Amino acid sequence: MTLPAPLTGVVPPVCTPLTPDREVDVPSLTRLVDHLLEGGVEGLFVLGTSSEAAYLTDRQRRLVVETVVGHVAGGVPVLAGAIDMTTPRVLDHVRYVTDAGADAVVVTAPFYTRTHPAEIARHYRLVAARSPVPVVAYDLPVAVHSKLGAELVLELAAEGTLAGLKDSSGDEGGFRAVVTGARADSAITGFSVLTGSELVVDSALAMGADGAVPGLANVDPAGYVRLYRLCRAGEWALARAEQERLCGLFGMVRVGDGGRMGGSSAALGAFKAALQLRGVIACAAMAEPQVPLSAEEIEGVGKFLAGAGLL
Amino acid sequence: MTLPAPLTGVVPPVCTPLTPDREVDVPSLTRLVDHLLEGGVEGLFVLGTSSEAAYLTDRQRRLVVETVVGHVAGGVPVLAGAIDMTTPRVLDHVRYVTDAGADAVVVTAPFYTRTHPAEIARHYRLVAARSPVPVVAYDLPVAVHSKLGAELVLELAAEGTLAGLKDSSGDEGGFRAVVTGARADSAITGFSVLTGSELVVDSALAMGADGAVPGLANVDPAGYVRLYRLCRAGEWALARAEQERLCGLFGMVRVGDGGRMGGSSAALGAFKAALQLRGVIACAAMAEPQVPLSAEEIEGVGKFLAGAGLL
Amino acid sequence: MTLPAPLTGVVPPVCTPLTPDREVDVPSLTRLVDHLLEGGVEGLFVLGTSSEAAYLTDRQRRLVVETVVGHVAGGVPVLAGAIDMTTPRVLDHVRYVTDAGADAVVVTAPFYTRTHPAEIARHYRLVAARSPVPVVAYDLPVAVHSKLGAELVLELAAEGTLAGLKDSSGDEGGFRAVVTGARADSAITGFSVLTGSELVVDSALAMGADGAVPGLANVDPAGYVRLYRLCRAGEWALARAEQERLCGLFGMVRVGDGGRMGGSSAALGAFKAALQLRGVIACAAMAEPQVPLSAEEIEGVGKFLAGAGLL
Amino acid sequence: MTLPAPLTGVVPPVCTPLTPDREVDVPSLTRLVDHLLEGGVEGLFVLGTSSEAAYLTDRQRRLVVETVVGHVAGGVPVLAGAIDMTTPRVLDHVRYVTDAGADAVVVTAPFYTRTHPAEIARHYRLVAARSPVPVVAYDLPVAVHSKLGAELVLELAAEGTLAGLKDSSGDEGGFRAVVTGARADSAITGFSVLTGSELVVDSALAMGADGAVPGLANVDPAGYVRLYRLCRAGEWALARAEQERLCGLFGMVRVGDGGRMGGSSAALGAFKAALQLRGVIACAAMAEPQVPLSAEEIEGVGKFLAGAGLL
Repeated sequence: MTLPAPLTGVVPPVCTPLTPDREVDVPSLTRLVDHLLEGGVEGLFVLGTSSEAAYLTDRQRRLVVETVVGHVAGGVPVLAGAIDMTTPRVLDHVRYVTDAGADAVVVTAPFYTRTHPAEIARHYRLVAARSPVPVVAYDLPVAVHSKLGAELVLELAAEGTLAGLKDSSGDEGGFRAVVTGARADSAITGFSVLTGSELVVDSALAMGADGAVPGLANVDPAGYVRLYRLCRAGEWALARAEQERLCGLFGMVRVGDGGRMGGSSAALGAFKAALQLRGVIACAAMAEPQVPLSAEEIEGVGKFLAGAGLL
Repeated sequence: MTLPAPLTGVVPPVCTPLTPDREVDVPSLTRLVDHLLEGGVEGLFVLGTSSEAAYLTDRQRRLVVETVVGHVAGGVPVLAGAIDMTTPRVLDHVRYVTDAGADAVVVTAPFYTRTHPAEIARHYRLVAARSPVPVVAYDLPVAVHSKLGAELVLELAAEGTLAGLKDSSGDEGGFRAVVTGARADSAITGFSVLTGSELVVDSALAMGADGAVPGLANVDPAGYVRLYRLCRAGEWALARAEQERLCGLFGMVRVGDGGRMGGSSAALGAFKAALQLRGVIACAAMAEPQVPLSAEEIEGVGKFLAGAGLL
Repeated sequence: MTLPAPLTGVVPPVCTPLTPDREVDVPSLTRLVDHLLEGGVEGLFVLGTSSEAAYLTDRQRRLVVETVVGHVAGGVPVLAGAIDMTTPRVLDHVRYVTDAGADAVVVTAPFYTRTHPAEIARHYRLVAARSPVPVVAYDLPVAVHSKLGAELVLELAAEGTLAGLKDSSGDEGGFRAVVTGARADSAITGFSVLTGSELVVDSALAMGADGAVPGLANVDPAGYVRLYRLCRAGEWALARAEQERLCGLFGMVRVGDGGRMGGSSAALGAFKAALQLRGVIACAAMAEPQVPLSAEEIEGVGKFLAGAGLL
Repeated sequence: MTLPAPLTGVVPPVCTPLTPDREVDVPSLTRLVDHLLEGGVEGLFVLGTSSEAAYLTDRQRRLVVETVVGHVAGGVPVLAGAIDMTTPRVLDHVRYVTDAGADAVVVTAPFYTRTHPAEIARHYRLVAARSPVPVVAYDLPVAVHSKLGAELVLELAAEGTLAGLKDSSGDEGGFRAVVTGARADSAITGFSVLTGSELVVDSALAMGADGAVPGLANVDPAGYVRLYRLCRAGEWALARAEQERLCGLFGMVRVGDGGRMGGSSAALGAFKAALQLRGVIACAAMAEPQVPLSAEEIEGVGKFLAGAGLL
């Protein structure tokens, strides 16, 4: 299907359920997709950071896209990450995720290599020139160690290179510059500005963002959809209350973050434990070499679910 | 062939010559290998950072290993980078580079994801358990944004997980801790401690390092081999003079580093320009999205070659 | 006067006008204070980052506090930065700024030294124990290279160590955690949560922040006061328009940020040029060793003023 | 006295012994000075990072300089740190430390503020123009968060702004560029290149450095002097053995670095505990807000002393 322009609403970065021996758990993945669609999400983003894309082999990535695209059958658009270090490698991913049916690709700046804004621009132009589907930029400095500047994003939007931005930078001032800049520039139409934040979705939508891509929406899609709709309705006080409930729920990512594992595993481990506790996925295993949550930590995640009325 | 234990001498990280349309230039690659072997190097490291491994597709990476392994025909050991974000993806690379004949694999800590020492240790243990050849750790904080601690490296060496370390961290105090720690621990035998520096090879060898993996050895392998031999002979004053000559030559990496491109492209662009000017490779093209050196900058590289007596 | 609990409204970090020979320009400083008070601000913060506190000698700092405290004569509270590296040095500043009449002190985490959360907590407890006036924490990672965690701030608030927080960290999720945490904890009363942002004041107030400390309020105090009042009235659409106008105006900080000077000088240089162009201060000189804006850049600042209707 | 040009040998950064109530312990300080002079040091550096200069009030700093200058009575040169954020504040320190008799001042790049190479150059030029004694640059990125480039240092050396460099950056390649650049430039005479490392003093001297300023020389001045003399005599194998013994001793800084305190306190706490255990100073107290070593950790420090034959 064609990517809506702009894409709006809640577009969760779909977790990738794994079996105990770390293969993609296809039945759990389709159950998770159903859980998200029932929550009211308007699109799905597979192979992002919350999907453990960095840990999936090419074969597993392909299987994820095929599974999800096949299961939603055009019901909502499916965006797929093409996460790799540089242009030639990203283009290989673009090829197979679009072969598998992705409606858009989501692409970061180059990483591992020390890069430069001129090289980032070149990267997006080359990817867009070869991609059969729209390209959404993924701004994730915590992973790629460079920041997409608002001016660069707007330039690439105006020339048609980029169809949207998923901003997980945490820089709300820069995010606002893209939102207002895109609105002000008549050369930019249908550009999707999406926040990757769990914690300030109401702020982002109040600024004029089109939608949100929060990892925590795996756990509580209905909550984020409710939040989105309250914001759209201008019910800011109710929206704030819903957002604060979700901020409380997000505290689950700190359960495992006591120095025994990395921040990525603590967050993904909590999301997966919550999905298992809610009966959505069969197994909370994470890809190697992530350290799993302990039984006690999983219990801690359960308390957050209970506190948010989700158990 | 079996990896020497320890591996010693100069082991250059072999550049990957590309054609103007960015395919691996096989004839130039074999010429480059001959140029290095004639210089007296004791091993070759392909698919490292200086090889633009981050930019090569899996197909191109495979071709590089096959080409080099086939060409040296057991004359010297060939180490191959298995550079990817996490364990499952690294294991895929390990599989095909060893199928292609690599004698050892060189592996960084996980990157893109926020990691943790416990996860780094797990990563190396899982890779070593599945690798048919020895595993050398690649410490490159500038790329992966974490540092391998000396204690972790020594622990992994003592238990047989790691066969060596290529240290490109620039932390000479930490490097020394590995060198002296490995020497002091009777559980550690045949472990190779290699510096990735271009600029302090004499210091590293004086500390007791086994060898060096300098990117600039692509341009002047004979110079680094001379330096290595002078150090081994305890001719420290002559070694210092040779090292200083090579430090001067290394200034070529700043020719393009004036704000128009990233530091990676400036360095690789200079090495490739120098190899073309010296008649070793046919074309100085770099992989996308790197910004190429200008004609004027290439001329600047030529002046460094001339200054070092290499033109 | 007693610091309001909580302190609310716009509390600008007052620039320090200097003479051409870099002495405090007292008449310009009192004119600037009048300009701010006429704009409707509810407090003044002297000796902060925007005040060039890092560049002022102890003698000059004292003169600034005496001048401003004397001039406002109790009309609004005056907060003073006690910006120095560690506890003993900060306590010296606390002594003289409170001798000079400051109603509260604003204190960062230790810097220059590599610190630790336990040492940061100890720092605030020691300062609060010795300070005759309330202590407000100043979270400014870009300057001090550590971040005040929300949990630490809430703990120090609950025990009465801290009277407020000025958050210039840019981490809106963490800011929200302090706002909602302080509201939820019955042990915390009268605690002031202030954003240091120029760009997301409306978001911060919508979350429940008490006020704002934007450097740009030097240039357009009336604009920020209007924005504050619109937010308090729940006029979110009008607030957004005002905030966006101010975001546009803030673009002036990029006029000088073309690689010729540091980011601090570019921002302060623009604020001071704007204040001179608006006729508030006599001279736009900045303290040494900052690089001044060129005549052309000052003209560029003027265009931003004109665009925002301020010239 | 006039600063030797170049200054050579071991020039320890003198710890500042404190009484239990954190005042300068003058008798312990003079005993420490005697201990260092008996060890054979060729100069003393007071008010550096190892001196806890960041924690000392101006009054305490003055007392330190007066005490040390008075005690050495011209026997060796006394360099004094003038550590503060920017030019005007540094100049205040320059004034009183030279009034107190310092033979040279040691000055970092500006910190707290976001700076720029052009502003760093201006800073040193302004300080040198007003200082009655030579200015030594202090390169300490871990504290000031910028790095002095070799080209900038050499430019400032050639024009006579800088009399020397204390390099604690850990970047041995950059250090070497200063050493060889200063040697090669006929406009640079008498410039002192000093390493701040504890761990690679032999390497630095082999490159051609003039001397060393290792914090650990407080604990074992005779060891570092022996190391220095072996290097000067070209006895590299014996020098390496001595350096490795000192590297082992330096392990004491990790005794307290288990997550309970900052890295600065762990190192300074170990040095002071060692000085107390060796009977040089009366009390190991550190300035606030540093976390002290526990009794068990102090015992751990003692084991390092015993291991190095110093107890």
